[in-house]
Amino acid sequence: MYGEVSELIEIGRLLHSRGWLPASGGNLSARVENDRVLITASGTHKGHLTREDFVTVDLEGKLLEGSKRPSAETLLHLVVYRNFPRVMSVLHVHSVNSTLISRLAKEDLKLENYELLKAFEGIKTHDTSIKVPVFENAQDMKTLSRLVEKRLVKGDLYGFLLKSHGLYTWGSSIREAYIRLEAFEFLFECELKLALRG
Amino acid sequence: MYGEVSELIEIGRLLHSRGWLPASGGNLSARVENDRVLITASGTHKGHLTREDFVTVDLEGKLLEGSKRPSAETLLHLVVYRNFPRVMSVLHVHSVNSTLISRLAKEDLKLENYELLKAFEGIKTHDTSIKVPVFENAQDMKTLSRLVEKRLVKGDLYGFLLKSHGLYTWGSSIREAYIRLEAFEFLFECELKLALRG
Amino acid sequence: MYGEVSELIEIGRLLHSRGWLPASGGNLSARVENDRVLITASGTHKGHLTREDFVTVDLEGKLLEGSKRPSAETLLHLVVYRNFPRVMSVLHVHSVNSTLISRLAKEDLKLENYELLKAFEGIKTHDTSIKVPVFENAQDMKTLSRLVEKRLVKGDLYGFLLKSHGLYTWGSSIREAYIRLEAFEFLFECELKLALRG
Amino acid sequence: MYGEVSELIEIGRLLHSRGWLPASGGNLSARVENDRVLITASGTHKGHLTREDFVTVDLEGKLLEGSKRPSAETLLHLVVYRNFPRVMSVLHVHSVNSTLISRLAKEDLKLENYELLKAFEGIKTHDTSIKVPVFENAQDMKTLSRLVEKRLVKGDLYGFLLKSHGLYTWGSSIREAYIRLEAFEFLFECELKLALRG
Repeated sequence: MYGEVSELIEIGRLLHSRGWLPASGGNLSARVENDRVLITASGTHKGHLTREDFVTVDLEGKLLEGSKRPSAETLLHLVVYRNFPRVMSVLHVHSVNSTLISRLAKEDLKLENYELLKAFEGIKTHDTSIKVPVFENAQDMKTLSRLVEKRLVKGDLYGFLLKSHGLYTWGSSIREAYIRLEAFEFLFECELKLALRG
Repeated sequence: MYGEVSELIEIGRLLHSRGWLPASGGNLSARVENDRVLITASGTHKGHLTREDFVTVDLEGKLLEGSKRPSAETLLHLVVYRNFPRVMSVLHVHSVNSTLISRLAKEDLKLENYELLKAFEGIKTHDTSIKVPVFENAQDMKTLSRLVEKRLVKGDLYGFLLKSHGLYTWGSSIREAYIRLEAFEFLFECELKLALRG
Repeated sequence: MYGEVSELIEIGRLLHSRGWLPASGGNLSARVENDRVLITASGTHKGHLTREDFVTVDLEGKLLEGSKRPSAETLLHLVVYRNFPRVMSVLHVHSVNSTLISRLAKEDLKLENYELLKAFEGIKTHDTSIKVPVFENAQDMKTLSRLVEKRLVKGDLYGFLLKSHGLYTWGSSIREAYIRLEAFEFLFECELKLALRG
Repeated sequence: MYGEVSELIEIGRLLHSRGWLPASGGNLSARVENDRVLITASGTHKGHLTREDFVTVDLEGKLLEGSKRPSAETLLHLVVYRNFPRVMSVLHVHSVNSTLISRLAKEDLKLENYELLKAFEGIKTHDTSIKVPVFENAQDMKTLSRLVEKRLVKGDLYGFLLKSHGLYTWGSSIREAYIRLEAFEFLFECELKLALRG
């Protein structure tokens, strides 16, 4: 099996221990050879993954390997892989911070003036801002993924939020996606504390 | 002894490390062969359980095995086992979130529009809500358990809260009860943050 | 050396990991044979204690064993040991919750209607309250310990707070003191969240 | 290689686990023999450091050892080492607490009346206050480090904040710097909770 499996198992354990993958929420994926995508199966607990909890699909979502059902949200991962050839990993988490900041957001979330913005590649100064699109949550993944795709192709995105649901982010390696995730979660925690104050 | 004992010891350690089983609060149980119920004894610390901290009772609460006294709240566990034959484990925790959200609740707590609602079986969309009954806390377990039973038999419950006390939830396995517990605690944390904002 | 040393080293590690013993704050003690009191030395980091970080004093505070200086707050521990012959351990922590709840308190802190009050021995129902005295912080330990003693002898205390400083609590064993500490910290967290809301 | 390397690797792991070194933020340094300064390289993740992630520079910032690029903020570390000959370690973290308390501060942050102030050497009573300067964040490290230096030479500083960025603190050993950092983070958490209340 792919080496990425053990890396994703460890990332799952880590993210769960921080409370970002509660219950059976979230899903983790990596692009492997021949544009296959390795992704956690539906309904698994991401804090206690085993090799059997992964499946492989092609870029259109056709099941190639594995006995379990791919997550329904696989389509959202694939939209990212298809549009960004350099992306090698997509991570989707349900943290309290991403759930609430997206729930409170009236429009795109703006992150501004934080030094930690420099964790996003291409950003060299705190004296800037990035926008994180907040999509209405939906269960129709085909419609939602088309909506996301329209926005992705405009570029300049580091991740997106689904309302009352969570964050999608990605990177050119599993490690880079994880670092970006840490940056987002940190910034969401900051923004949420400010948003909830009296 | 039952294999469930070591599973519950590990669950106790895990839940304590998250701050959901402070002091000697909470109790954990599992249904074992012949409709016996294995449950933590009264006054034990659930973060550091040993085999001696468990007793076995029948569905009416009669002590069958063990030298310690069953928890006074055993009756609340038994109400769940008697009414739901598929339930194999009941977990009761005292977290800050469940304590405070129940303390602030004026009526049943409503959890609405969260993606994580899909962690509860039978729920296929975020576009819904569930109700978590909040009972007045009481020390008379016979009266309280009758009250709870009346509500349980109406069905459609995934757990209930006791005011300023904590959560009861359950599942068709220890693991399923634990996943449901994570979902509830996550949602309570969200709701509490919103309830306490200025 | 005393078996209590390793138990206190482990308690120190545990309490530090929860953020209740920041920097060189707090001190931990146990009564050992012949009414000697084993206590952490001044200025040590309680998350990384070694055997050399402990000293032994008599009930008046005279140094009996150890090369380091006993904590200045030893007198507050001794007041508890002298007045309560059954007390075998005194734990003093500086948590954010105890620091802030004491800082905000205008008089004694009242803890009311929580199920977790039953963690304090002698309490059989949530339908009650306990008072936690809040003393003005002071550096003159002789005066402060006399003030504390006056209040202690009135009985019915499970612990006390020093303003903007932290909690003292105790028990008939190190384990009982630790369980009581968990109960207090849980209740302070609840009270602080309610006190800080908008 | 220097023994300080493994100590800083462990400190990095510890501080990251507390959420104070998110993404690739922060940097850690120690003065070694001949006034060389060992410092984490630019862009490394401080929770998972290896020996290769460190470089050595002289007090003016000239690279002496290592294949990676020294952090841009190296100049801020060097300002501290040049002005305080007894300082052997400088730690810079990006915690949510230091980020937000600096973001909210209108002038120097004042920490007052906390017992934990006694963790800062030279302070013998809670009945005092210290000031933590808050500098506007900047990317021009030469200008910023001159600004910081002007303030440092006035003395009496235990650390400083950069706005929406984080804390710099130091000590006469790595351990002392770490203890001071814990004290600062604790006090920032207290102050932030008070500042954000309704």
